[in-house]
Amino acid sequence: MNTTHKKKKIGIVTGGGDCPGLNAVIRAIVKAAALQGWESIGIHGGYDGLLTPMKTRPLSIKDMDGLLVRGGTILGTASSGPFSAKTGQGKTRQIDSSILAQAKTNFDRLGLSALVAIGGDGTLTVALQMHEHGWPVVGVPKTIDNDLDATLMTFGFDTAVSCAVDALDRLHSTAQSHDRVMVLEVMGRYAGWIAAQAGLAGGADVILIPEFPFNYDAVCRKINARETEGKLFTLVIVAEGASPAGQDLIAGFANHTDREIRLGGIGEQVAEEIQSRTGKESRCVVLGHLQRGGTPTQFDRQLCTRFGVYAVQMIARNQFGMMAALTGTGIAPVFLADAVDRIRTVPREGELVMTARALGISFGDG
Amino acid sequence: MNTTHKKKKIGIVTGGGDCPGLNAVIRAIVKAAALQGWESIGIHGGYDGLLTPMKTRPLSIKDMDGLLVRGGTILGTASSGPFSAKTGQGKTRQIDSSILAQAKTNFDRLGLSALVAIGGDGTLTVALQMHEHGWPVVGVPKTIDNDLDATLMTFGFDTAVSCAVDALDRLHSTAQSHDRVMVLEVMGRYAGWIAAQAGLAGGADVILIPEFPFNYDAVCRKINARETEGKLFTLVIVAEGASPAGQDLIAGFANHTDREIRLGGIGEQVAEEIQSRTGKESRCVVLGHLQRGGTPTQFDRQLCTRFGVYAVQMIARNQFGMMAALTGTGIAPVFLADAVDRIRTVPREGELVMTARALGISFGDG
Amino acid sequence: MNTTHKKKKIGIVTGGGDCPGLNAVIRAIVKAAALQGWESIGIHGGYDGLLTPMKTRPLSIKDMDGLLVRGGTILGTASSGPFSAKTGQGKTRQIDSSILAQAKTNFDRLGLSALVAIGGDGTLTVALQMHEHGWPVVGVPKTIDNDLDATLMTFGFDTAVSCAVDALDRLHSTAQSHDRVMVLEVMGRYAGWIAAQAGLAGGADVILIPEFPFNYDAVCRKINARETEGKLFTLVIVAEGASPAGQDLIAGFANHTDREIRLGGIGEQVAEEIQSRTGKESRCVVLGHLQRGGTPTQFDRQLCTRFGVYAVQMIARNQFGMMAALTGTGIAPVFLADAVDRIRTVPREGELVMTARALGISFGDG
Amino acid sequence: MNTTHKKKKIGIVTGGGDCPGLNAVIRAIVKAAALQGWESIGIHGGYDGLLTPMKTRPLSIKDMDGLLVRGGTILGTASSGPFSAKTGQGKTRQIDSSILAQAKTNFDRLGLSALVAIGGDGTLTVALQMHEHGWPVVGVPKTIDNDLDATLMTFGFDTAVSCAVDALDRLHSTAQSHDRVMVLEVMGRYAGWIAAQAGLAGGADVILIPEFPFNYDAVCRKINARETEGKLFTLVIVAEGASPAGQDLIAGFANHTDREIRLGGIGEQVAEEIQSRTGKESRCVVLGHLQRGGTPTQFDRQLCTRFGVYAVQMIARNQFGMMAALTGTGIAPVFLADAVDRIRTVPREGELVMTARALGISFGDG
Repeated sequence: MNTTHKKKKIGIVTGGGDCPGLNAVIRAIVKAAALQGWESIGIHGGYDGLLTPMKTRPLSIKDMDGLLVRGGTILGTASSGPFSAKTGQGKTRQIDSSILAQAKTNFDRLGLSALVAIGGDGTLTVALQMHEHGWPVVGVPKTIDNDLDATLMTFGFDTAVSCAVDALDRLHSTAQSHDRVMVLEVMGRYAGWIAAQAGLAGGADVILIPEFPFNYDAVCRKINARETEGKLFTLVIVAEGASPAGQDLIAGFANHTDREIRLGGIGEQVAEEIQSRTGKESRCVVLGHLQRGGTPTQFDRQLCTRFGVYAVQMIARNQFGMMAALTGTGIAPVFLADAVDRIRTVPREGELVMTARALGISFGDG
Repeated sequence: MNTTHKKKKIGIVTGGGDCPGLNAVIRAIVKAAALQGWESIGIHGGYDGLLTPMKTRPLSIKDMDGLLVRGGTILGTASSGPFSAKTGQGKTRQIDSSILAQAKTNFDRLGLSALVAIGGDGTLTVALQMHEHGWPVVGVPKTIDNDLDATLMTFGFDTAVSCAVDALDRLHSTAQSHDRVMVLEVMGRYAGWIAAQAGLAGGADVILIPEFPFNYDAVCRKINARETEGKLFTLVIVAEGASPAGQDLIAGFANHTDREIRLGGIGEQVAEEIQSRTGKESRCVVLGHLQRGGTPTQFDRQLCTRFGVYAVQMIARNQFGMMAALTGTGIAPVFLADAVDRIRTVPREGELVMTARALGISFGDG
Repeated sequence: MNTTHKKKKIGIVTGGGDCPGLNAVIRAIVKAAALQGWESIGIHGGYDGLLTPMKTRPLSIKDMDGLLVRGGTILGTASSGPFSAKTGQGKTRQIDSSILAQAKTNFDRLGLSALVAIGGDGTLTVALQMHEHGWPVVGVPKTIDNDLDATLMTFGFDTAVSCAVDALDRLHSTAQSHDRVMVLEVMGRYAGWIAAQAGLAGGADVILIPEFPFNYDAVCRKINARETEGKLFTLVIVAEGASPAGQDLIAGFANHTDREIRLGGIGEQVAEEIQSRTGKESRCVVLGHLQRGGTPTQFDRQLCTRFGVYAVQMIARNQFGMMAALTGTGIAPVFLADAVDRIRTVPREGELVMTARALGISFGDG
Repeated sequence: MNTTHKKKKIGIVTGGGDCPGLNAVIRAIVKAAALQGWESIGIHGGYDGLLTPMKTRPLSIKDMDGLLVRGGTILGTASSGPFSAKTGQGKTRQIDSSILAQAKTNFDRLGLSALVAIGGDGTLTVALQMHEHGWPVVGVPKTIDNDLDATLMTFGFDTAVSCAVDALDRLHSTAQSHDRVMVLEVMGRYAGWIAAQAGLAGGADVILIPEFPFNYDAVCRKINARETEGKLFTLVIVAEGASPAGQDLIAGFANHTDREIRLGGIGEQVAEEIQSRTGKESRCVVLGHLQRGGTPTQFDRQLCTRFGVYAVQMIARNQFGMMAALTGTGIAPVFLADAVDRIRTVPREGELVMTARALGISFGDG
């Protein structure tokens, strides 16, 4: 008997912060599953929807209407609660076993044959713990910061970079008209991918990222050098997790469980410091939640669709405890255990940074 | 002899804060002037460009290439200095007469037959003072807030509202995914046109504007009412100049000459107050300078072009001391003296507000 | 007793060609009606949904989720069938009285107290005939061409112009790179508003519209004049209904009931003729249905919302046989009898055309 | 002595059809070269600019202002003339040796140390022939169709797909409102990458590409199957080079040297055939030149910038006769001889096609 073709019933859960493309992943899973004759069950409000009383509902192809273009997740998420696998300090913690047991009882009661967990490091950490407790679970990676080592790219990232580049385009004309320094703060707590790639695509003059502690002398030198060339304005893009050399990178976050609390911090600090040192008018815009919302780009829609379909195929092949990942040659399965807690940062000698430097872009570390 | 067809040489100056469409106005002036055989001279860095040493340059049709779509102003502006006609408290002050005299000497030395001043209340106030000193000047109105009483619409406004609506669209999906209250702060110091129109077009549930002092009880009642209907998220749009009833509207600005310093204030306050009163997660995004940059919408490009061409026609007809204005039936000239210092605010009983209320939108004043 | 506040049940129907903003109008009607405690019934597939067997469904506030941004109409339309009030030659015909009677019987059976008809000339003509037969009907005007004389502006037009301007922006760079003539054909069968306004906003060099029969000599003179100035490319925008002087404007449509059949005609003809006369490479793009789809602009979303709310207010005031219209001072009711069959065309001496000419734009009629 | 750091003077030429991002490549080359102290010379109108009289001009960093976002190429291109390396049948031909000699004389007279050729198969073929005659030339690959085998991705492709997906989004709502079949024809003469990827990202139901000859029975079966599921509309995307099984794929092009002549052909044929077979209203939009214009996406801006910088590095390393290519791990040099004439087509068993099929998308070949 070929179990692959047995009718299955799969649960879908989304976790963590919002990200463009979550709905597109859900749509691909439900459509691909339905074509195999399987049922899909949506679990609401993150893993909490599996606790008693459950919050679930069947998802039909008809429910998927319009989801390819709609930001957010129709299933909602939870960013705190009993399934939080991360402490404020970014440490991993074990989910309470009675909580897991309650969820598993409900999972079985629903008759689910598998669970697709779509989320970031926290969500996938829970998925891994579930797998270690015997759940048939597969993962789809989501971090808007694109900092998961196990996959070349996570969905939502291209959309976030596009949003940041659009903002740089807008700030470019206003900076130029007013001979100002404009600072754009974008997401990127531990890794500066958004800042680095958006900076390259949006013509930033200075890129500040968590990987390279910067010093204000170098930043102001760049601004002054432009002045000398007759360019009286400067565009700076800074990742929320960037910090001047000598400051503890993580310190700012130590007492917060919520990244948003910090939003606005470093960008404003950079603008103020530049203004006080150079005397040039400097202004800061914090892109914040705008990066997380909106219609996904065509690239993200493709990636979401590929991830969703692949998740269904992993279930058909009983590849549990694994996650869909984008590699150099296509989508491939990787072990959740090898994926969680592995941050990918911007390499100092990589082509991205070298390309930026070849154009005269400063990382404030010169 | 028909003086209209005499060859003229006109100066163009842009003043005040950046605004999408400034370049499109410049382009229309230069092209329409050139077609009449006139010359155009661009004055750089606001009126200061007329001081010694002058900063001016001839503008040819060729220089206008690509300006229709480019945000900002190729002429630059000045937001402070000897030509600041507004104090930090919004009071009008007389420009120093020796400054005016120096500028006039240079104006004559350039051989200019007329000056087109493109700007907001401050810039037009200076234009009026110049006119009172005998300068041949015409005005083109610019305020991103759309709060100039003498014209139905100022350019840049449609682009700013579009930018704010795009932001609401992005926040909508993230608010819905997280069952959150999202607060978007937009420009509008004395008048809430951006907030009101963007709120209507972007599906906001609560609109807070300077014209209607709001109370947090009413705001939270709306949020709770939505909760009762099963809508667990709320979109709030707030103008930077909005304030709770009982607070002095202007107080917050009293010591600042620069509106940007205040940016971020009321939006964050609203988000915090809502979170503390309702217990719902609330987040704020301050749109800030993003509203001022970028490519103008098609509507603004048309309006800019019409204003620019009309300014040239006013010069041809010697209608000095006047400003191009959009009326119910087209572009018409109005006296600068009747235009400056007349703010147009959102009327309580107007169709815009009544339409919003008919849809259940709260202005926090219930 | 105040009948205004009696609970009502209103039917909503959309007719004619697709247009961005139809859903936004429906949403405004349903929300404003619900706030008054009224019910809304959607009629599917145009007026045909009132025939036996009926195709109708109740519309709740919940059904309106997401409609503000979604193009098209969730109610569908019909462009032919028993309720076609227009012949292929644009002549009005009387709807069969037995058809009207059957629809009225169903209308009464549904217990409807009023009908909102959203559509163009054809749809509103039927609405007028219904009103003359005693139906309590109000209208909301829709023509993407903006050629209805009774209202300053119809919804969908701003979105269509934006789409055309975006296309011109794209063609601009490609025309410039290749020293080509690029021709963009847009909608506008009897009136050239889209072509004229998009041409002004998008920097077209030549605008060809139905109102001004053009001659190829004048068009090519403009192209050659640009050549002389060193501008080796030219952007032409042409309305589908434009035609060279001497040709019968309407002839091309005589045998077609469907405008789309003609799409592509005049644009390609213009490109070919230019290429053969000037020897310059000339290419044509027909924008076609792209103008009709997509998310409405912020302006259209506001206008739709205002129209929808106003329609509900007209019903509350028993202003039947009337249509919501945009006037110089706001939304106002006009008689359907005064609205249908009255085309508004681009006036030769109007400010729009004069502005374009002042910039050197040719209408091919010089 | 390190020749790498010797001052160089490099020529830049762009060839073939327009493509978003050409200017961004030029900008990256000029900026990266200037930072090394090198000079850049722009060659106008394709290779023809090297013939007598030469059309060249120095390119400074200042000239690069605004080029990152501007479509097209400031250098212009030539699509025919003495440097056409391709016949109408797609065959390669040898450039006349006296032409090459004349160009080389001018090249030497300019004192150029290297030439960067940015273009597609034709342009790179000429570059290869030049290299074989001893020119120090490096290539940057450009095909909007993304069908060059030697590189994973060419620039302009992401922008073209985005443009096509935006069109599908627009057509989706209009198709749904009218219960229609909408056919979108996109570029892709020999390879269907745009159609396949845009179809996946834009929710097309049928994708027709040159690689898979289709039959109308299969296409109509899909439309009817949707009808049965209650989906009364269908979106079809078709590459310009697609053809029904049994027709000679290349035949249609046999007598044309210009791809644009064919534009519009297959899309209209498909719409007509579907309408005649299913009786459903079917309409076609030909995207045409809209795909080639406009501001590049952030992805393309990055790719262009990386390619441009890499070209400069190849010159510094004397890697002549080679081309910058995107591989799984970054940018790398490949031999021009291995790059030209190698088309990459959509593989039948590849993940892209398999993903589409898993969602029920038909390629008309079932």
